[in-house]
Amino acid sequence: MNIFNKTVMNVGEMASGAQLTVPVYSFVADKTDEKNNALNVYIQANMHGAEVQGNAVIFQLLELLKNINIKGDITLVPYANPVACNHKNGEYTLGRFDPITGVNWNRMYHFDESIIAPFAEKHMLSSDLKIADEFKKLMLNQIEQKLEHNIYGLTTGQKIAYQLQQLAHNADIVLDLHTGPISSKHLYCPEYAEQSAHFFDIPHTILIPNSFDGAMDEATFCPWWSLQHSFSHLGREFTMGKGIFNKESFTVELGSQEQIDLDTAHQDALGILSYLQQKGVISNTKFTPERMVRYACLLKDYKTLYSPMGGMVDYLAEFGVPLKKEQPLARILRMDNYGDGKPLHYIHLEQDVIPILHFASASVNQGTELYKVFRNFFVL
Amino acid sequence: MNIFNKTVMNVGEMASGAQLTVPVYSFVADKTDEKNNALNVYIQANMHGAEVQGNAVIFQLLELLKNINIKGDITLVPYANPVACNHKNGEYTLGRFDPITGVNWNRMYHFDESIIAPFAEKHMLSSDLKIADEFKKLMLNQIEQKLEHNIYGLTTGQKIAYQLQQLAHNADIVLDLHTGPISSKHLYCPEYAEQSAHFFDIPHTILIPNSFDGAMDEATFCPWWSLQHSFSHLGREFTMGKGIFNKESFTVELGSQEQIDLDTAHQDALGILSYLQQKGVISNTKFTPERMVRYACLLKDYKTLYSPMGGMVDYLAEFGVPLKKEQPLARILRMDNYGDGKPLHYIHLEQDVIPILHFASASVNQGTELYKVFRNFFVL
Amino acid sequence: MNIFNKTVMNVGEMASGAQLTVPVYSFVADKTDEKNNALNVYIQANMHGAEVQGNAVIFQLLELLKNINIKGDITLVPYANPVACNHKNGEYTLGRFDPITGVNWNRMYHFDESIIAPFAEKHMLSSDLKIADEFKKLMLNQIEQKLEHNIYGLTTGQKIAYQLQQLAHNADIVLDLHTGPISSKHLYCPEYAEQSAHFFDIPHTILIPNSFDGAMDEATFCPWWSLQHSFSHLGREFTMGKGIFNKESFTVELGSQEQIDLDTAHQDALGILSYLQQKGVISNTKFTPERMVRYACLLKDYKTLYSPMGGMVDYLAEFGVPLKKEQPLARILRMDNYGDGKPLHYIHLEQDVIPILHFASASVNQGTELYKVFRNFFVL
Amino acid sequence: MNIFNKTVMNVGEMASGAQLTVPVYSFVADKTDEKNNALNVYIQANMHGAEVQGNAVIFQLLELLKNINIKGDITLVPYANPVACNHKNGEYTLGRFDPITGVNWNRMYHFDESIIAPFAEKHMLSSDLKIADEFKKLMLNQIEQKLEHNIYGLTTGQKIAYQLQQLAHNADIVLDLHTGPISSKHLYCPEYAEQSAHFFDIPHTILIPNSFDGAMDEATFCPWWSLQHSFSHLGREFTMGKGIFNKESFTVELGSQEQIDLDTAHQDALGILSYLQQKGVISNTKFTPERMVRYACLLKDYKTLYSPMGGMVDYLAEFGVPLKKEQPLARILRMDNYGDGKPLHYIHLEQDVIPILHFASASVNQGTELYKVFRNFFVL
Repeated sequence: MNIFNKTVMNVGEMASGAQLTVPVYSFVADKTDEKNNALNVYIQANMHGAEVQGNAVIFQLLELLKNINIKGDITLVPYANPVACNHKNGEYTLGRFDPITGVNWNRMYHFDESIIAPFAEKHMLSSDLKIADEFKKLMLNQIEQKLEHNIYGLTTGQKIAYQLQQLAHNADIVLDLHTGPISSKHLYCPEYAEQSAHFFDIPHTILIPNSFDGAMDEATFCPWWSLQHSFSHLGREFTMGKGIFNKESFTVELGSQEQIDLDTAHQDALGILSYLQQKGVISNTKFTPERMVRYACLLKDYKTLYSPMGGMVDYLAEFGVPLKKEQPLARILRMDNYGDGKPLHYIHLEQDVIPILHFASASVNQGTELYKVFRNFFVL
Repeated sequence: MNIFNKTVMNVGEMASGAQLTVPVYSFVADKTDEKNNALNVYIQANMHGAEVQGNAVIFQLLELLKNINIKGDITLVPYANPVACNHKNGEYTLGRFDPITGVNWNRMYHFDESIIAPFAEKHMLSSDLKIADEFKKLMLNQIEQKLEHNIYGLTTGQKIAYQLQQLAHNADIVLDLHTGPISSKHLYCPEYAEQSAHFFDIPHTILIPNSFDGAMDEATFCPWWSLQHSFSHLGREFTMGKGIFNKESFTVELGSQEQIDLDTAHQDALGILSYLQQKGVISNTKFTPERMVRYACLLKDYKTLYSPMGGMVDYLAEFGVPLKKEQPLARILRMDNYGDGKPLHYIHLEQDVIPILHFASASVNQGTELYKVFRNFFVL
Repeated sequence: MNIFNKTVMNVGEMASGAQLTVPVYSFVADKTDEKNNALNVYIQANMHGAEVQGNAVIFQLLELLKNINIKGDITLVPYANPVACNHKNGEYTLGRFDPITGVNWNRMYHFDESIIAPFAEKHMLSSDLKIADEFKKLMLNQIEQKLEHNIYGLTTGQKIAYQLQQLAHNADIVLDLHTGPISSKHLYCPEYAEQSAHFFDIPHTILIPNSFDGAMDEATFCPWWSLQHSFSHLGREFTMGKGIFNKESFTVELGSQEQIDLDTAHQDALGILSYLQQKGVISNTKFTPERMVRYACLLKDYKTLYSPMGGMVDYLAEFGVPLKKEQPLARILRMDNYGDGKPLHYIHLEQDVIPILHFASASVNQGTELYKVFRNFFVL
Repeated sequence: MNIFNKTVMNVGEMASGAQLTVPVYSFVADKTDEKNNALNVYIQANMHGAEVQGNAVIFQLLELLKNINIKGDITLVPYANPVACNHKNGEYTLGRFDPITGVNWNRMYHFDESIIAPFAEKHMLSSDLKIADEFKKLMLNQIEQKLEHNIYGLTTGQKIAYQLQQLAHNADIVLDLHTGPISSKHLYCPEYAEQSAHFFDIPHTILIPNSFDGAMDEATFCPWWSLQHSFSHLGREFTMGKGIFNKESFTVELGSQEQIDLDTAHQDALGILSYLQQKGVISNTKFTPERMVRYACLLKDYKTLYSPMGGMVDYLAEFGVPLKKEQPLARILRMDNYGDGKPLHYIHLEQDVIPILHFASASVNQGTELYKVFRNFFVL
């Protein structure tokens, strides 16, 4: 039976002095066998406070991994952001941002693009392995500088994000477990890793380009992707997803926030194991992805629709099913207009879409996010 | 076709000077026929900000009542509390209390028990009709005093509650439409009106005694119930639910908060019409209550269970189905204990219960409300 | 040099499993000298999250008490409510109530009046000392029952309050350190202890009757006061403030919330020592109360004034200075009325008052608390 | 006496249907005199909810401007953001961002830099006046596109910001009235307009470069500054601050949030009139700037200092006074460490600074903003 080592990482301190800690579960694979160059894996959950289901998935992964043949290192971090995870706002958990500054907790990771070109120039003649080693060292060194030499310069979220990023930079595969508000399952996948989306049990994939906006997945694959571009520019060709560039990072959206369902989590864990087996991280198992139609769209076609009016929304469109432009997405009730105006407004779009998620509450202001949908979608 | 008259009631003013208004829909029945002494009805919704489904029910009631023979006055008030209804707190609507003071919006109605005994003494020899008239006048007069002669003494919630109470005191039947957090349908019903619970399409009833705690339903029936007691004490007997004491008031809990479902609202509206027909407010229709097992318990047996620990809850128990004491109510995940403690805790109770509602979020602190359940329940 | 012993009390658990603890500093006096029956003291701070200055006062008290001759036991508890103290809501600390339920953190202490009469009857013939001992035991036993035998019945706030109350019940003198929103210093003092108000350096005193509303001060003196009444009713006379009824409990309002000022805290600590010296808890020192006019009013005359309109308030009246009825208390700006209405509204009262505190923000809704003032005030 | 015309702009709609409106006060100058090419002015206040003092300044400006000789158009907008202005979160007003998304209300204005180069190329030979006219038209047209042709694409904040920006684009001088949390007065001033900083009664100036980050001031001057650069690049030279590029835009930070002080507002209004007179917008008056030492620093030297620990802060450093590196900025109380750790921590910096503002609450988490300070400051 595999034993996961548990350590505790100190990531924050509250006004009363209460320490906020994050448990880290890690399995170090036996790589004495020279042929074992299995990929290393980092999985975290609950960076956004209300998005708790990933913790249950990590629970089920740990239970399942006990009895599996593991070839790469695997690190799992539930409750990745205890500040957010403990911040109740009324009955609910404040989801997505630092309640003091408004900055999204998942937009605080570090990537300084200016390091890429000089590194590529310096290592034009280095061996692949040396490039991989030195680049990882460089990235880790940058994070350490930020954490250690910056006494009055670290925000609450950066202190957390940078420590998590240290763990992620040591892995080849990174899974950041999130959820939507009220949502179907979907996957953010870098464009070059499209083939891997077939191994998850997730029917909707958003293909994202090489552009860094502060999120964990981007912070993990953008540096390597940019490095590959930079080498290519200088005339040395590598392929993303191959050799030392065999790096993949996904944001896995597990469904709706504010919910724990351990049975569903077991299914989600099996889907992740199916992917890990395919990547050679675990072996001697028989996890196979479910058969399903997998829809995808490009990030630029993943559109947020904002409410054109204030009111109370009856969300009509089913997630994951293509919605014809004749069909209503939602209807908005405006009882104040009853009798002398229009009390029911139907929301229609001008093209077919696949609804992926909707807002968590029926009450919306003008300009509140209603739905996120796939436009120009295709079968993966 | 019946026409409902619409007026707008000014109930609040925000810091920018923005006025907060409440629409009031009223139908005044033709009572020129001397035999028509049909009861008058008052229905309101959305006193708690997140409990929006009642607005949809009022929409469907208005649609249905257009073509029904109405014999009593009917007044309907959606968006009864625009302060609460517009108060978003993150993605969600702050549900239950004034965000500045913490006082529950549904605990601000007025009833001064000290008026009862003197009134009964004074009217020992008055006719029934005179008693009914004078008592209504007295209650309305008290509210008016509070609203008009108290320039620095009215809180935000009192200004709203008292105006709604003026409308309610003019009715014989009062329905206050609420919802639970995540909840089955249930009904708060005064003990003397138990028979009426059979006419709603609601499978769970909480029978409440004559004790005033500030809520709309209590504020409507407690004065009459107390008056009847007082007369009885003096030797003049009336029966609650009969004659001038034919007063009924219910809090109707329509399901879960933060949701609008117009189709379900149509069903809920039919259930309310079934009750109104039974009370003679509408006629020539054929609304019949659904056949179902109706469970009930006394208010003292409607128990709130608080979480004995912090953690993330997988709510297991199904609403409305008796739960044997061997069966778990919920399980609480504590990933921080994985590996060196107990990561899963099952919640078991010491007696059979019927789960009615649970907390809106999976994340709970020690002492957060988990479930509300019927103990010592019985079939109505 | 006196050494204070430090222990840590576990009072809560958050969703991530993070423990919330409260530090307890205690000095146990040498009472081997039979003549030393000095009173015991309990002091706590920060029950309301934003009211932090009491922590600084406890810091200064601990520093000062190091070198003072202490005759009674003294227990000091800063950060008494870590749930509230750590709950940031935007930039500010959510002050006064459980953010999930709205219940005021300082209304959750326990006192069951029904125990009083039977206890008095049972102990009509007991010695004074036995009465004191047994009554304390009874109260502590009740709290223990609540804490230990009530697995699903404890709210977040009760778990904290009851543990603090255990410490308080072991003392004769209780000081609960609070602050107002934006506020002068003032003192809540039981009517029978009026003389003690002269020993604090606090210019405003509210005299409170024997009525329990859930607060720490009431939870501490009401049981004894009620017991004394009950004995008196049965014909055995004791005097509140004398002998075994030498119990005093105050809520000390130190000024404004959201502020720490260690220099002012030093002054406040000296004021408290002046009181403790007068009560014989410390000796051989020369703390004397400041000379000042001390105003007081009865609790029923301590009035909250609510804003008659929404708007932005320029708070004009100075704290602590009698305000003639001709003088404006505040003026409210309503720029939306500029040009076609009245943009400035002056608030005048109908009698002289002493303004004690005002709301923390300039922005108010209709019905928001504006000021709290003494009416019918007198010099103590 | 000058008469300001009042109109009302509809900027939002809440869940209940309540309309949120903004009053707009405008004076249209008589420009029939050909020599009158006075600059037009736009002034707004309260874009951030808690920053209310600007409304009082607009009140005083309107009062003062009644009797002044006005030569340019002047538009004044108090309560610019009624969503933020009405959003109470506990006692306080949620200050800086959309409570649903976390996006700063003052980061939603529009500027699409890609329009600049093509415009400059197209208008290389156009007259100055035509350039000015056409560029304004282009900017207004872009905003109109965003507002009108984007039914599901407008967030709550964009709907407000774009409407305000339409007013601002019609002016040459823009003043956006803000406040800090607890703060001295300071001014954000574009580098090219440094001389104008001398005419305000504000002792601290931050000089900002031509880089757009979504704020009102940037959205107003960046387009013109970029256009001037673009023309220069093509060989046609203009000077910022002269001729058709006589455009200035400032964010005026009036002091602390959550406060209205009409007397101080009068002084602030005089300072603004001093500037407007200097720019020729008003005449025949004798407003002169106060004599004071005016300190400045570059935006890159305006540093935010984050707390290295959780705790309760005694803010020591005085605003506006150079702080020697030996002097403490603040001290942080950690009562949980009393007795077995370090209860007081002094914050020292490694260079001299001028403290400008500090956080609004004494309670901070690790990583909460403590102070903002000028480094490398100089006398303007």
